[in-house]
Amino acid sequence: MNIGIIGLGLIGGSLGLDLRTCGYKVLGVSRREHVCQKASDRGVVDLASIDFAILAEAEVIFICTPIAAILPTVNQLIPFLDPSTVLTDVGSVKAPVVEAIAPLWSNFVGGHPMAGNSDNGIEAAQTNLFVSKPYVLTPIESTPLTAITIVEKIVTSLNAKLYQCSPQDHDRAVSWISHLPVIVSGSLIASCQSEDNAEVLKLAQNLASSGFRDTSRVGGGNPELGLMMARYNRDELLRSLQHYRQNLDRAIDLIEQQNWVELEQQLQSNHAARSHFVQE
Amino acid sequence: MNIGIIGLGLIGGSLGLDLRTCGYKVLGVSRREHVCQKASDRGVVDLASIDFAILAEAEVIFICTPIAAILPTVNQLIPFLDPSTVLTDVGSVKAPVVEAIAPLWSNFVGGHPMAGNSDNGIEAAQTNLFVSKPYVLTPIESTPLTAITIVEKIVTSLNAKLYQCSPQDHDRAVSWISHLPVIVSGSLIASCQSEDNAEVLKLAQNLASSGFRDTSRVGGGNPELGLMMARYNRDELLRSLQHYRQNLDRAIDLIEQQNWVELEQQLQSNHAARSHFVQE
Repeated sequence: MNIGIIGLGLIGGSLGLDLRTCGYKVLGVSRREHVCQKASDRGVVDLASIDFAILAEAEVIFICTPIAAILPTVNQLIPFLDPSTVLTDVGSVKAPVVEAIAPLWSNFVGGHPMAGNSDNGIEAAQTNLFVSKPYVLTPIESTPLTAITIVEKIVTSLNAKLYQCSPQDHDRAVSWISHLPVIVSGSLIASCQSEDNAEVLKLAQNLASSGFRDTSRVGGGNPELGLMMARYNRDELLRSLQHYRQNLDRAIDLIEQQNWVELEQQLQSNHAARSHFVQE
Repeated sequence: MNIGIIGLGLIGGSLGLDLRTCGYKVLGVSRREHVCQKASDRGVVDLASIDFAILAEAEVIFICTPIAAILPTVNQLIPFLDPSTVLTDVGSVKAPVVEAIAPLWSNFVGGHPMAGNSDNGIEAAQTNLFVSKPYVLTPIESTPLTAITIVEKIVTSLNAKLYQCSPQDHDRAVSWISHLPVIVSGSLIASCQSEDNAEVLKLAQNLASSGFRDTSRVGGGNPELGLMMARYNRDELLRSLQHYRQNLDRAIDLIEQQNWVELEQQLQSNHAARSHFVQE
């Protein structure tokens, strides 16, 4: 089977490496000639081009561009495609993508491999990036079963953990565990930095250790990614932020009222609940 | 020089191991006989006892009990001491400790080695625990210079990074980088857990990965430690929580108003500010 990949960065490039290992023929497209060259040199693709025309031969195409480029990419791509071609994407927010693409291309299956890291670009592409990582597919009622089955089979060959849910449920779930933490963590950095006693600020910077490092990591991450998730998952992010604010206010109240019994219960409940999200 | 250690857990036990290596004679006291036995067996101390009387020979005594036990310990200890004996503690909040102990014992120097981890007990004691870790001393105006110099010399022999500041500045700085993160991070777990759609909650639990793991770590930690810091550093914690809430509200406003320009500036500012706290 021929598989096309548009966008040869960390995700697209890593997909290419693994899919070639699985025996698929991989056709890669990048906007930049030097990325195509690098992808060929590294064995990420069997054939690379800046021209969508090479994808006429692809039976499945993974769109691995930044989320803002998915719709323009599909519009450009459509003239080259046979109607049976299956499209899928790797965007980290699903409802706006699925709503935009499904009316244009019925054989579209929204997807989200949760395997990103802080690296990017074709240089960061690596084998086995998806192994044991969640890979969510978000078909809707009108998605043809054959298209879902084809994408499922490919994802399974990456040894990813396959999940399936509605685009809306996906966006709500990732708001909780991925997008809300960015704002929560970023606000921690912003508030520490607001300390107006310069000596205390310097001392805090000197004393910060693993607790601060871990809690502030995603909030101090790539600003473009943070902005993207806020723009595209705005409604769900605002919903989870309102819930967060209520829980924060409750903790503040308990501390103000010196209600140590209930504060301890809350801390115990947090301790127990975390184990349902994180295996350590 | 003879050094006494009261409380032979992670901190007290690790101090004993390193101080013996440095050539000090270490006299250890624990409330529990089996801990004394273990401390002797592991070479944490030269002599261990449940009886404070052995500390009459000590020139410096480290009080390594939980923070609530520091004052009662000092009261019990005083009858055994020569007035020249220097006392120091390792509590993670300093103003209430210094305010309680300084009037009882003038040769007291508040201290806080920031070298804890999630382990505890004599079994967790390890060599070189303090190497390159901050160790804060919080003398006050009335603290004799000789006492400060003696404790400084010992801390330096541990190869810790020595800092000196007022108890109030210490408590404000650790509120920012150590105590505020516990409440911020715990509220994240509590709010995620509040999702009332069981399928979405399950999906969020399945999809949670490194971002959620790091951001939730200190909030899902030892409930007793969280409670302790809230009780003893209440005023500073409430102050930093109010600042945090303002920064959170500002982020929520920017997202509500779709003010992407300022949100991006804030995310960039967070990204830049973090590097002043964390070297990675």
